[in-house]
Amino acid sequence: MVLEVALIDVTDAKGFEAAYRQARPGLAGTEGCRSVRMTRGLESPNRFVLLVEWDSVEAHEMNFRQTDRFAQWRGAIGPFFAGPPTVEHFTDVV
Amino acid sequence: MVLEVALIDVTDAKGFEAAYRQARPGLAGTEGCRSVRMTRGLESPNRFVLLVEWDSVEAHEMNFRQTDRFAQWRGAIGPFFAGPPTVEHFTDVV
Repeated sequence: MVLEVALIDVTDAKGFEAAYRQARPGLAGTEGCRSVRMTRGLESPNRFVLLVEWDSVEAHEMNFRQTDRFAQWRGAIGPFFAGPPTVEHFTDVV
Repeated sequence: MVLEVALIDVTDAKGFEAAYRQARPGLAGTEGCRSVRMTRGLESPNRFVLLVEWDSVEAHEMNFRQTDRFAQWRGAIGPFFAGPPTVEHFTDVV
């Protein structure tokens, strides 16, 4: 299991949240996607952190990023980005 | 409930992990601390993301950061920091 951590700065937090709610099922329903958690900054209300658990990096890449699901997701939330998100994968330190 | 998200770049990942394992109980046992999850970067192996769920920002500040628990925690892991960590609080978008 890997954890995708995406740092997303937006121009319009309310618009972004509404778009996210509509687009979320396309992400959450992807094969290999175990959980989706979107969080909003308290100190920085236009900053969001998206946490997605995937079976593997390959599941994220092959089942989502290289498919129409990603095009639809990015098409929905992308217009609210203040800049390119930072997206990296992490594994648990046990 | 709030989620603390800390981005930590280190100079020595193995040393940092060992220090974290020893210091973790002092953090996890703090009143108002609900969960502690440390993750290590796949693309950036010297980057860690720490996720801590707190009852509130106040619990984090009053029960941890302003106590000897924090001094001990920072004393253990701080020597491995490549720079000041970025620490912010987030709430779930439901």
